[in-house]
Amino acid sequence: MRRLIAAKRDGGRIAPQQWADLIASYLKGGVDDAQMAALLMACVFTGLHAEETQALTEAFVRSGDVLSFPAALAPVVDKHSSGGVGDTASLIVVPLVAACGVRVAKLSGRALGHTGGTLDKLEAVAGVRTDLDPQRFERIVREVGCAIAAQSELLVPADKRIYALRDRTGTVSSVGLIAASIVSKKIAGGAASIVYDVKCGNGAFMHDPSAALELAQVLVTLTESFGRSATALVTDMNEPLGTSIGTALEVIEARDFLAGTRRDPRLLAVCLALARALLKGAGFDPGRADAAIDRALNSGAAAQRLGAMLEAQGAVPGALAELEPLGTGVAVPAPRGGYVSSIATTALGEQARRLVASGGSRAGIIILARIGEAVAAGQRLGVVYGDASAAAEVQAAFTFSDEAPAPRPLVYAEVTSAGTGFARSTVESK
Amino acid sequence: MRRLIAAKRDGGRIAPQQWADLIASYLKGGVDDAQMAALLMACVFTGLHAEETQALTEAFVRSGDVLSFPAALAPVVDKHSSGGVGDTASLIVVPLVAACGVRVAKLSGRALGHTGGTLDKLEAVAGVRTDLDPQRFERIVREVGCAIAAQSELLVPADKRIYALRDRTGTVSSVGLIAASIVSKKIAGGAASIVYDVKCGNGAFMHDPSAALELAQVLVTLTESFGRSATALVTDMNEPLGTSIGTALEVIEARDFLAGTRRDPRLLAVCLALARALLKGAGFDPGRADAAIDRALNSGAAAQRLGAMLEAQGAVPGALAELEPLGTGVAVPAPRGGYVSSIATTALGEQARRLVASGGSRAGIIILARIGEAVAAGQRLGVVYGDASAAAEVQAAFTFSDEAPAPRPLVYAEVTSAGTGFARSTVESK
Repeated sequence: MRRLIAAKRDGGRIAPQQWADLIASYLKGGVDDAQMAALLMACVFTGLHAEETQALTEAFVRSGDVLSFPAALAPVVDKHSSGGVGDTASLIVVPLVAACGVRVAKLSGRALGHTGGTLDKLEAVAGVRTDLDPQRFERIVREVGCAIAAQSELLVPADKRIYALRDRTGTVSSVGLIAASIVSKKIAGGAASIVYDVKCGNGAFMHDPSAALELAQVLVTLTESFGRSATALVTDMNEPLGTSIGTALEVIEARDFLAGTRRDPRLLAVCLALARALLKGAGFDPGRADAAIDRALNSGAAAQRLGAMLEAQGAVPGALAELEPLGTGVAVPAPRGGYVSSIATTALGEQARRLVASGGSRAGIIILARIGEAVAAGQRLGVVYGDASAAAEVQAAFTFSDEAPAPRPLVYAEVTSAGTGFARSTVESK
Repeated sequence: MRRLIAAKRDGGRIAPQQWADLIASYLKGGVDDAQMAALLMACVFTGLHAEETQALTEAFVRSGDVLSFPAALAPVVDKHSSGGVGDTASLIVVPLVAACGVRVAKLSGRALGHTGGTLDKLEAVAGVRTDLDPQRFERIVREVGCAIAAQSELLVPADKRIYALRDRTGTVSSVGLIAASIVSKKIAGGAASIVYDVKCGNGAFMHDPSAALELAQVLVTLTESFGRSATALVTDMNEPLGTSIGTALEVIEARDFLAGTRRDPRLLAVCLALARALLKGAGFDPGRADAAIDRALNSGAAAQRLGAMLEAQGAVPGALAELEPLGTGVAVPAPRGGYVSSIATTALGEQARRLVASGGSRAGIIILARIGEAVAAGQRLGVVYGDASAAAEVQAAFTFSDEAPAPRPLVYAEVTSAGTGFARSTVESK
């Protein structure tokens, strides 16, 4: 192990079999946390070659169970977000794609840092369970067309241990290590086609579009090396994706979005891009995908599918329909007139997590003003549900300018094995 | 801790108080081995700023006891070698400088890797103890003028733990970390003036003179920041320093050197440079230093001082005088005629350690040919004492050329707080 650490430190490459052996040895205790931490830090500095990332991912996958779905269900697709604020897309796209006739088996995580977690959001609906065993997970995917479950303890235990080690040793920030962690979980989850939503901006873990693009490209190449198809979108996270930030509040936004009563244009644009990519991964050509999405959204089929999935996962009947914010909310007024020039997205995510922690799942933030939007002094920027004292923090998250800021792309890039397309769509201010 | 690791990883600087706190916390268990290993690896990549090296050294020193000598003994000097093969200099220079009237309190280490350890050599003399408690150490320094003892467990325990961690996590190779480890031990040892012998070449831990020079400069600056005076020599280790490699064999070489019966020119040149630097650190001007060294070497005073030191440390009377190699030895013939063009110094060090391990302290290697020397086929390159099968390995350590190789400097540089002087001396082949 000392030699492997020194080799990696000095810019060398660790061979595939050596990666397999060292991960196996780490799980058995032959390599200790200190040696692994030193190796991980060396990887942060010298990077991982594609062959090394592949070997590490494979070692992760082999450390535990690997799900597989019967051929009758194929193709089963999955979707991953690198984490954002007000990112309600999974709750919309999963039932939407299922309503288009493609099965979605999504493994999700908990809230991390300032970002929300899909599991936490689902559990805001009374009765919903996310700790589904593989049999129940597969049954719901088969019968309802989609399910969203927690990563089982039995899948990729090596990643679980190494992720915890990386978290406390400052060794998270390596594209290769990040990609191995994400992709190993998706491969073990059994989907044949995977769409990655890599967020970038002040509310994402990656602030810089070029770093996000690099990760997107590695995710696609790595996933395809396991014989699965993959697409990655690089999307903007310089403001919340949807208008709701919290747990129940985001479920409400997804419910109302699918019902057609409220569709935020940014959220719509990203959900459409994700749904198209997921359907393309299942063999749909663009025209067929768009027609299927249109029908599923406008016929109520997607909305119905969300309800069916939640009920199959244990939701109390009527719980989704009855979900509402906590109290009447406290308005957050604009301190001055002008254009919204930036939003401190991470701060909003942190405030929403605090509001939920103190006020329960129905607390949170709804934002009513977007970057580029002209507001008058005193106009509502948003509404706080729960502890009213958060209103000042939410107000402080907005900055203003006298001139309209330049529009930014919403989908910076779409990466497939065929190449990368840039700036597919922008959403103008209202 | 996570923030400190991330700051160091990203090229930032850890403040002095933070270094003090994190070392204290590490010793108490608040910071664990994995976090420390990750931080050390980040230091290997981003380096330590002078202020950080100073703070880390101070934290090491404060983790344990600090020796101090009575003013009546001042100035007490010490000497450190970064480790080499056939490096008998301490056994010569310590009594030599003491015989010049300057007290030497030397703390030494064990053999490390292929390099010899002064403690192991001393213990080849029957009865000698190196585990001296501080009172006995000080008493011998006062009464005899010099002593060589093992580092007490009570001095710099933080370095002891971190050194062991660095050794198994591939984080040894950082100038700042190396300097903090060396200098903290010397500061805690209580000497007012310290001379460092930084070896470079194929038998040293640093192969490259420029890396050795950088370490030498850091050692001097760092030592002076603690109010002690310092000089560092960068010396060649592309062949053994003396002609003897082992434990008893090196004691015999030192004994015979001081007695004047055998003085290898390379060993003499380095010992003179070290003795001059030690005396300069004690306030001698160059003329006075040279005269004192001359007198001590030629009057027998230095030889007598070695015997007195060993007896004070427990040597059986007569043991030094009676010490002799194991058996008659096996000659190692030159496989061809020509100039000795290089010597695999590390291989010789490793062979000598194996010979001592299997044959006891009187086993080892004596070399009879130096780089640049012309030899005839069959002429003796050296003699092996102990397991005769090592002769082939010793022979293989020599390479030959038809033309004389270019002469190399023996002392590459001398570093003091006033600046650096280069290539002070070379030793021509015989």
